[in-house]
Formats: sequence, structure tokens, C-alpha cells
Amino acid sequence: MCPAPVNDGDRRGYIIPIGGGEDKDVNPTILQRFVDLSGGSNADIVVLPTASKLEDTGERYEGVFSNLGAGNVSSIAISGREDCNNPEFAERCGNATGIFITGGNQLRLSSILGGTDVAQVIRRINARGVPIAGTSAGASIMSEHMMAGGEADQGPSEGGAVLAPGLGLTNAAIIDQHFSERNRLGRLLSAVALNPFLLGMGIDEDTGVFIGPESILDIVGSGTVTIVDGSDMSYSSAHSANRNQGLGMLGLKMDILHEGCRYDLNLREAFPPLEEDNNVCNL
Amino acid sequence: MCPAPVNDGDRRGYIIPIGGGEDKDVNPTILQRFVDLSGGSNADIVVLPTASKLEDTGERYEGVFSNLGAGNVSSIAISGREDCNNPEFAERCGNATGIFITGGNQLRLSSILGGTDVAQVIRRINARGVPIAGTSAGASIMSEHMMAGGEADQGPSEGGAVLAPGLGLTNAAIIDQHFSERNRLGRLLSAVALNPFLLGMGIDEDTGVFIGPESILDIVGSGTVTIVDGSDMSYSSAHSANRNQGLGMLGLKMDILHEGCRYDLNLREAFPPLEEDNNVCNL
Repeated sequence: MCPAPVNDGDRRGYIIPIGGGEDKDVNPTILQRFVDLSGGSNADIVVLPTASKLEDTGERYEGVFSNLGAGNVSSIAISGREDCNNPEFAERCGNATGIFITGGNQLRLSSILGGTDVAQVIRRINARGVPIAGTSAGASIMSEHMMAGGEADQGPSEGGAVLAPGLGLTNAAIIDQHFSERNRLGRLLSAVALNPFLLGMGIDEDTGVFIGPESILDIVGSGTVTIVDGSDMSYSSAHSANRNQGLGMLGLKMDILHEGCRYDLNLREAFPPLEEDNNVCNL
Repeated sequence: MCPAPVNDGDRRGYIIPIGGGEDKDVNPTILQRFVDLSGGSNADIVVLPTASKLEDTGERYEGVFSNLGAGNVSSIAISGREDCNNPEFAERCGNATGIFITGGNQLRLSSILGGTDVAQVIRRINARGVPIAGTSAGASIMSEHMMAGGEADQGPSEGGAVLAPGLGLTNAAIIDQHFSERNRLGRLLSAVALNPFLLGMGIDEDTGVFIGPESILDIVGSGTVTIVDGSDMSYSSAHSANRNQGLGMLGLKMDILHEGCRYDLNLREAFPPLEEDNNVCNL
């Protein structure tokens, strides 16, 4: 599903996929920035712990966001599709100034939220300017084409990526998380091979991607983000490979972004940190 | 060390790094091609099991190459530097029509072989036309700048690759092996970041790279080979990053090659399999 349209005079809110394992205590720069974007002491943040089967996930994030200065935080106990059409839950999401989707299993998210009132509300408030953040499974669910599973510890292969429809907050990229830690380049490439219009975005742990209203993103956190662009590929064996066979993909572009780097999703172009931000210089 | 010079009228022999775990029984296409290049029934293959601490490694490969039709195969029990200056061993290497370097620990290879007569002889016969193959550690040792170790399961980082001088059969690339299986993209990128003149070559298990006399390579086996080219990078944080910090690297080129794909190391350009070889078509 394409992102909800932005009305005249509005600006789309930030979309913030996080690679999982974000720092919550010592150096919580990613979550702090999300709280600030949500309004800080005026924020009304709603946590959706649906992806997780742990009972205290929502409560844990409530505490974290309160500690980071959020004015109001509550979590919504959505555990089945009927909850997603509960008018009270839809209304609480509709009034939120920030939504946070926790980690767990992204197929729980897509199969429970998909096509419900809550999903509609989240898409609509994001188009109106409200930031939506998600970590791990909560990051994957954001894209139109969601990485639902696949093969780790191998190169790209036929059948190496399993896709499912996601929430569609962005259709510019397919998002993978725990990226370097779980050796997921192969499955991300397998997805890009299926249709190179997809930009592959692999996010490491403790790393957040802040996608702004103009589709320019910047990186916060201690890891890196790998962007794979297959639009100029001269050759791919995706359509002729046998099941599980390794894929050839020639002419890929790749950018590895660290904190402060930016990427323009429309131009498909990466930019180094601004000089005034730090002492990192060009080559 | 640069490759030994090729005399007028000679052609350099194939250099054949293999990513480890090559099929030895059911579908031994990589080892078969090495035996054929070495002369088949007229071959005199010398196996160097120095990298391995297992006593039967040399004997095992003797059996494999004999089964694949090699006329003569013997292994040389080099276990210390003194063996490498043994005239008998140097002479046997000098008469070989093919050399095979087994897996194990590449620092054993570089620290035992480095600067000895046997190393000189191997470099010289390769320049005269004799193919040299190596698997796993035996693949890494081939390059001028050898991947000696580094960090897996993370993106590129300051200190993420540990280099040592290798045998210098080729200086076109730094070679890593067990590549997708052991999640080594990060350390390969860490090496490329140190000096982008290095082409990064990551070879999966059961995959062989046949580097021909004209520096055009082709792929044999069931996995893929990842080539990372940093020569057009617009930005790298390699010189300013702190120890273990994730690196930014913008503007990388990447090619994933499967069996039949070719790559020109001089042009840094990848080519799909020839149409007549199979039914794989361009995009």
C-alpha cells in the first residue's frame, strides 16, 4: 500500500525505523530524538507492543519515554484484530503526537494490524505530521513491501527473501534490521533482486534512520546503515535461477552510512556528515 | 610483494582462490578444473598442507586429486621455516605442474613460508604458467595484502580488518573466504576503507575464482563471489573514526558473481555468463 496522501499545508511526519537493540539507558540518543520530535514535555506517545509476546514490553517503553521527558505515554494492549477496530484504541492513536511500535515478530504486526482502523489511523496521522518510530519488527512493518523472513548466512539466492505486505508508511525502501549482527545482506539483496525499484535498507542494532518529510534521511546511533541500490544493475539471474541457487547481481551501488550521514531517497544519493557537525572530512 | 614478473613468451598461470568447503566427491567441479589446468593425466601436483594442523590433510587431497585423474600427486610436509629452505622441497615445487595450498590458518602460512625458497619458487613457477590453487587460508595467502583476521557480525569499523603481508601472487585484490557463511562483509569493507586501491573479493564456500593470465576471472561452484570496489568512493570516515567505531563509506560499487560470471580486474568491470553457456539472460 502506498503512503497516505499529505493534505495541502501539511508535512508528513518523520518515519523512524530502528535496527533493534537501541540504547535505552546510557546513551539513548535515538529514543531521545523521537521523544523530542513527538513534542517532548508536550508529547502524547502511544506504544504498540503488539509484535512482542512479552507482557512487560509496553510498560518498559512507557518508563523509558517518561525518563526521557515525554509528557504523556501509554501503551495499547492490542493482541488481536478485534482490538484494532476498537474505537477507543483508534481514538487514542488518532490523538497521539508520536507512535512507537516495539520489536517482536513483524508477521504478528502485519496479520493483526493489516487493514484495520488502527492501521488506517497510523497512516493518516503520519501524513498529517506525527512521527512514527519502530524498532526491529516495528521497523520492518513500516515499508510497503515488508521483509517477513529469509535466509541468513548466505549470499543472495532464489527464494532467499520472504516478503509480505507491510503498513506502507514508506514505499521507497524495503527495511531490514539487526542487519550486520544477523548477517542479512544476502536476504536484502534477494529482495532487491525481485524488483530493483526497491531500495534495500539494512539497519544495524542501536541505529535509527530518521526519514524526514522531504524523503531525506539521517542516521543516529552507534552502528551503520547499508543502502543497496539495484537500479543500475546490468544483469541479474533472479528470473532464471533455480530454487535456493545463488544469484548473480552485477552493477549494484552500495552506501554505508554512519551517524550524521544523510541519504536522499528520491535522488538515491548519499551525503557525508556536514563539516560543521564534526571533524570528519572528505577523502 | 608484487607478483613475480612474467618473462617474454610466457603467460602467467591461473591463480585460483577457493572459499573453503569445496565439494570433493559429489560435484567436484572446482577441483576438477584445477586438475585439468594442471595437465590432467600428465599433471604433477604438489599439495602444501602447511596451514592445517590435521595430520591427514595432505593425504586426503592426494586421494581426491588422484580420483580426479591427476597423473601424479604428492604432499610436502612443511611444518617450519627450515623445511621451506630444504632444496629437495624447493625442487619438487619447481617441477610441479600445479600447486594446491590447503586450508587452516593463513598466519601459519605467511609466517612459515614468507621469504623462503619455497615461496620464491611458487611465485616464479606461477609467472611461468603453473596454476596455483588454495582453499580457505590457502586462498587468503595469495594476495599481496592478506586478510589475517578481523571482526565478523558487524559493519565496517575502525580496526575491523587485520592485514598481514601475503604471498603476493596477485595484488589486484584482497581475498576473504567463507564469506557469506561467516558474515565477513564488514571486515572486507574495513580493509577496502584502509586504501581503496584494494579491490575486495569475498568468496563463499564451495566457490572458486579462476584468475586467468589476462587478469580476467571466472567463477565455478555453488556459491557467489562478492566484489567490492571503493575506487569511486566520495567519502570515507576511515581516517577519522575512533577505535571500533562504525565506518561510513559512500559510493561503493558491488557485484555479486555466480558461476559463469566474469570480472576484469584491470577494468574493474563485471560480465554476465555468456549466452551460449546457459539460458540466463540480461535484465
